Amino acid sequence: MPHVVIQYTPNIDADMDALCKELLAVLIEQKDEHGKQLYPIGGTRVLAYPAQHYAVADSNRDYAFMYINARIAAGRSPAALAESGDAMLAVVKRRFAELFDKQLIGITLQIDVSPGQVYDAKHSNLHPLFNK
Amino acid sequence: MPHVVIQYTPNIDADMDALCKELLAVLIEQKDEHGKQLYPIGGTRVLAYPAQHYAVADSNRDYAFMYINARIAAGRSPAALAESGDAMLAVVKRRFAELFDKQLIGITLQIDVSPGQVYDAKHSNLHPLFNK
Amino acid sequence: MPHVVIQYTPNIDADMDALCKELLAVLIEQKDEHGKQLYPIGGTRVLAYPAQHYAVADSNRDYAFMYINARIAAGRSPAALAESGDAMLAVVKRRFAELFDKQLIGITLQIDVSPGQVYDAKHSNLHPLFNK
Repeated sequence: MPHVVIQYTPNIDADMDALCKELLAVLIEQKDEHGKQLYPIGGTRVLAYPAQHYAVADSNRDYAFMYINARIAAGRSPAALAESGDAMLAVVKRRFAELFDKQLIGITLQIDVSPGQVYDAKHSNLHPLFNK
Repeated sequence: MPHVVIQYTPNIDADMDALCKELLAVLIEQKDEHGKQLYPIGGTRVLAYPAQHYAVADSNRDYAFMYINARIAAGRSPAALAESGDAMLAVVKRRFAELFDKQLIGITLQIDVSPGQVYDAKHSNLHPLFNK
Repeated sequence: MPHVVIQYTPNIDADMDALCKELLAVLIEQKDEHGKQLYPIGGTRVLAYPAQHYAVADSNRDYAFMYINARIAAGRSPAALAESGDAMLAVVKRRFAELFDKQLIGITLQIDVSPGQVYDAKHSNLHPLFNK
């Protein structure tokens, strides 16, 4: 974790690979109150999914929408989570500044702290790469 | 919000664009106890995703499944949320009445009130269109 | 329920249809403390979605990631849920044993007990097939 999923209408003309990379980059740069790495690098990922079918707002025009959800394991401070959200939001605002002038688009960014989670298992050969 | 996501097996022969539009339409028609707009039009969207791979029930036949999840921000009354669910369910039942006679299909519709949410940001030029 | 969704990077060379089927099979085999069927067969499904765009870890190499999430209705014991998680994890570990030697991949498996759920409706002709 974080596990970031982007669900969006396919009428958005954006470089989604670059957006994924940039969101990932700001997440793995985050530090906690003691200046330590906030998230494990080997467990951080961003996945983006254009919808096959969609309808937005009053559906009278071809509005665009992008929903960014980050699921994060419990244990971080509210301040650190808010900073992570702000850092991702800054990426989004910068990346879409130009598009906002040309397209009708809504973007929502939310962080959930693993709601209702009762089981958690990891099976990975990525973590050892970054825990040296 | 509401943020509605439909995850379904691709063996369903339905007009998914029309389903998205109709679910959207009933959501933006919802009123609260005082007759006021229950959901902001500019923040309401429905996104549908056929699965690339799937397995359902005992997987002995090509069963179909459709899962409809609406994520809604906190603050609405239980009665209003139940009415929203009933209104969406009515759309689904009407739309799939004919298909139910021909295909083995399960449909589940659930509403979540933003579980575990710790961060929420909106960046949109849709809201101003509808808040006049 | 269970509603299992697999979100993964498309650079994973695995038989995803077979994985879906096998996860489904172990779920419908689960029993409760009294030896009774833990999950309704007609409501159990696994849906898999390769991401269109993604970024993982430090994104310096083409890392793979697979996130498996099972959403389960409330009412099962913690022990039964843990056993379900362990059974799915065993499938994953066996299936990916060979791949782990060749590819850098992270797999996370989590179970959520319907977080924040306020509305739940089923419309299905699958359940009657299995409730005889």
